[in-house]
Amino acid sequence: MQVETRPVSIAGLRFGGPEFVVIAGPCAIESLAQFSTVARAVKSSGAAMLRGGIYKLRTDPRSFQGLGSAAFDIVRKVRDETGLPIVSELTDPRQVAELYDVVDVFQIGARNMHNYSLLKEVAATRKPTLLKRGISAKVEEWLLAAEYLCAEGNNNVILCERGIRTFESVTRNTLDLSAVSYVKHNSRFPVIVDPSHGVGVPELIGPMCLAAAACGADGLILEVHHCPERALSDAQQALTPEEFGEIIEKLRPVLSAVKRSLAMPPAYCAAS
Amino acid sequence: MQVETRPVSIAGLRFGGPEFVVIAGPCAIESLAQFSTVARAVKSSGAAMLRGGIYKLRTDPRSFQGLGSAAFDIVRKVRDETGLPIVSELTDPRQVAELYDVVDVFQIGARNMHNYSLLKEVAATRKPTLLKRGISAKVEEWLLAAEYLCAEGNNNVILCERGIRTFESVTRNTLDLSAVSYVKHNSRFPVIVDPSHGVGVPELIGPMCLAAAACGADGLILEVHHCPERALSDAQQALTPEEFGEIIEKLRPVLSAVKRSLAMPPAYCAAS
Amino acid sequence: MQVETRPVSIAGLRFGGPEFVVIAGPCAIESLAQFSTVARAVKSSGAAMLRGGIYKLRTDPRSFQGLGSAAFDIVRKVRDETGLPIVSELTDPRQVAELYDVVDVFQIGARNMHNYSLLKEVAATRKPTLLKRGISAKVEEWLLAAEYLCAEGNNNVILCERGIRTFESVTRNTLDLSAVSYVKHNSRFPVIVDPSHGVGVPELIGPMCLAAAACGADGLILEVHHCPERALSDAQQALTPEEFGEIIEKLRPVLSAVKRSLAMPPAYCAAS
Amino acid sequence: MQVETRPVSIAGLRFGGPEFVVIAGPCAIESLAQFSTVARAVKSSGAAMLRGGIYKLRTDPRSFQGLGSAAFDIVRKVRDETGLPIVSELTDPRQVAELYDVVDVFQIGARNMHNYSLLKEVAATRKPTLLKRGISAKVEEWLLAAEYLCAEGNNNVILCERGIRTFESVTRNTLDLSAVSYVKHNSRFPVIVDPSHGVGVPELIGPMCLAAAACGADGLILEVHHCPERALSDAQQALTPEEFGEIIEKLRPVLSAVKRSLAMPPAYCAAS
Repeated sequence: MQVETRPVSIAGLRFGGPEFVVIAGPCAIESLAQFSTVARAVKSSGAAMLRGGIYKLRTDPRSFQGLGSAAFDIVRKVRDETGLPIVSELTDPRQVAELYDVVDVFQIGARNMHNYSLLKEVAATRKPTLLKRGISAKVEEWLLAAEYLCAEGNNNVILCERGIRTFESVTRNTLDLSAVSYVKHNSRFPVIVDPSHGVGVPELIGPMCLAAAACGADGLILEVHHCPERALSDAQQALTPEEFGEIIEKLRPVLSAVKRSLAMPPAYCAAS
Repeated sequence: MQVETRPVSIAGLRFGGPEFVVIAGPCAIESLAQFSTVARAVKSSGAAMLRGGIYKLRTDPRSFQGLGSAAFDIVRKVRDETGLPIVSELTDPRQVAELYDVVDVFQIGARNMHNYSLLKEVAATRKPTLLKRGISAKVEEWLLAAEYLCAEGNNNVILCERGIRTFESVTRNTLDLSAVSYVKHNSRFPVIVDPSHGVGVPELIGPMCLAAAACGADGLILEVHHCPERALSDAQQALTPEEFGEIIEKLRPVLSAVKRSLAMPPAYCAAS
Repeated sequence: MQVETRPVSIAGLRFGGPEFVVIAGPCAIESLAQFSTVARAVKSSGAAMLRGGIYKLRTDPRSFQGLGSAAFDIVRKVRDETGLPIVSELTDPRQVAELYDVVDVFQIGARNMHNYSLLKEVAATRKPTLLKRGISAKVEEWLLAAEYLCAEGNNNVILCERGIRTFESVTRNTLDLSAVSYVKHNSRFPVIVDPSHGVGVPELIGPMCLAAAACGADGLILEVHHCPERALSDAQQALTPEEFGEIIEKLRPVLSAVKRSLAMPPAYCAAS
Repeated sequence: MQVETRPVSIAGLRFGGPEFVVIAGPCAIESLAQFSTVARAVKSSGAAMLRGGIYKLRTDPRSFQGLGSAAFDIVRKVRDETGLPIVSELTDPRQVAELYDVVDVFQIGARNMHNYSLLKEVAATRKPTLLKRGISAKVEEWLLAAEYLCAEGNNNVILCERGIRTFESVTRNTLDLSAVSYVKHNSRFPVIVDPSHGVGVPELIGPMCLAAAACGADGLILEVHHCPERALSDAQQALTPEEFGEIIEKLRPVLSAVKRSLAMPPAYCAAS
């Protein structure tokens, strides 16, 4: 018997209800032109929410670390322009206050799932939060990390499976869809899937999107860039807007088959 | 660009074509009554082929090791009765000759994927063979093991993803559906999925069946027992015939969504 | 050809030179009586430095989280009493300033190895830092995290292997001593070993201490509690002072065999 | 409290007693000249037993598969010449009879640890057997595989740790020395270590040999080739005879430190 999911609402969107929410956007926000171009493209194909990195956690200290506060105005403009809510990652507890009014959803990245100082700080705001599974986190540890976010009475937690580290190397990580199904059966959190980081190979992302929808995930988060080969981070796994559009078209009948439908952009509902 | 799959035909069934083949049956054949009961039940729900262990590989030497040659007559009777082809596992090169006329498809189990003596012996027969992925085999090693089977001009190889060993423990193994998609894009072998061993938790098997169908697998192999709690092996992960039937009903619309259909039992096609 | 290690000096102790430094103490500081008792015991057996958790990262939000700032005075008193330098973990960039004068060495725990905000903040202080390997960090990622600490000209970085997450479950983690040897051959950082977290089973800690010394590690960090069964955290893996003393006695001839010796407590050298 | 090891005697050598046995030789026997050259070199440096592959299990069907029965005479000549017993791997139950008189110890390789047909056949001979741990075998599974060998009253079982598969890639596998210590504390089987396969990097093999001796292993098995770059298999990890000799010299004082000594070649004891 599956536990009933407690939906989380964000700016007119509902995660964990009958609608399936697709979040899309670039790995990192690079410029207004780039973020706006990608945002408009993914909205026209079916994305209902945007992603875009402001502060990036990079393994190598010499890699591009994100625009930081220089991206705040870009985020505001693109949100106004598209009407789509935006999720972005926090990497430091001191960013909580400054990002609070900039983004609609806080993201806790895989590398910070165990960063309990950050989780406590975020929990205190009660702002909707997307909690990625750590790269080597057991499901039970992931659910306990979610408890940190709920400790202050915050129920606005969405989980995100993004692949675990295993011995396999043809994919960047091993996407653990059985964990998605386990979470749906054993917790009340909505759960979405990130096949971009999960597999890291563009041609495998589409099939994993369909699989995620079929097994009961509540949505997807995908990296899209209008010119992947020029992306400043994660270039090798970004989809083009065309590839993204094709995936969405294949996704619609699978969602119908499991009695769900693609969430519309909130601007569509509200006359904004 | 996906590599075109080279279908494998077995007694009127085709793996790797537009039809999706479901294989079902008990982990181990325990008696004529048991195998016949399960076989008729799964056929009536949509299985097009049977599975049933004759020789079992067991981690603990005190566990039930299968009926061995005492199961040969049972297999022949149930095949005659249902008209369904049967796959069963070989665990020793000396079983090749004796099982050749008993089963329709040889199975190489996960623990024998690297047993190259066995692979060479099987290859020489050119009989259709189901090659399970080793519990810690990289995809490239799995494809090389398939090359052992092809070395004698045998093209009748079907791959089977059955979960890999990781740190996660809420599931028995971690079912690697991205490997299924990788194999479809990079090799010509049909590939099916074994969610029973892959996740080992009955309530998660159904969602993984739908996910496998959605991401492009060519079929499924499932453990079904008419009375799981009395099964002599893998009791904890066997589906009841009712649960199996419900999964098949949910599978049909997902297959339609990806433009495939459930393969009919061959007895249905041939007027046998 | 092994790369020459660049030693790190701390209050009269040298990591990475011919002397082998043993750090010991409780997982968490619980009270002045507890920390003082353990500190005196481990000093008398051969520890040259103390460990003791002030801020604890706990998987479960309901677990004991450490005394926090209430431990500062305890740390100062025990340092004065024993003359031993102290290492303790930082879990939040905002703790850098307050802990700067309390401890001699900052520890970055395994769960924070990827917390680059914290690493940057710590690097700016140039204070000696013990960087634990993340539970699923590849060696190359660990060395890149060390580069974050070196970015501000800080050369005072000591690495610590503490076990990686694998499928094995008879030990808490899998202690990767070949990584210790790899780091000695390919980087200039001193590297020590934490068998307490690495194996998590008291009877296996001693053999792993000897193995670490034999393969070239520059020291050890061990959890010791005068009454393990009453410890507020990691009770199951703490050594008693007696067990700790026995390990040190077995360690001495192994160190001689590899032409090293046990570092004396600095108070022994300096007449303090 | 450590379980007392039940020693296994082979041609005058004792595994699991106070003496530490070093087995060395090439990955594969390539010719009489090659095997004899390597055998004499390793004997003169301190090896008390020889290894040499007759039948090789290779991932790629196009790789060199060993000389097979053409190596039998070579083995007999080198055994006569050096007086050293020889261990070699069985890969098929049909090799048991033919290898019975050729080698002194049967080896079950990592890929066959789960090949229970082979284990049963070997057990029936009661010949001394070296059982390698499977690349992804949990320790409890390894001990159960040893039970298969003991099922026929065969007590002549020696275990061998040879590295497990993890996410780490700077080493070929992750050598799990804590498993060695666990087995010494919890079973009666002698256990040796194979650092050649465990780490696969020549410069790390020596440190791992010392670590194995320090933590209580009963011996080592090492790949040595007089000309590694021309070896037909495992060329990248073979030691030269000179490197092997240097490791043995470093090993002696570590063995003394743990109150053990290097086993002499049996020809030394017996006046042969």
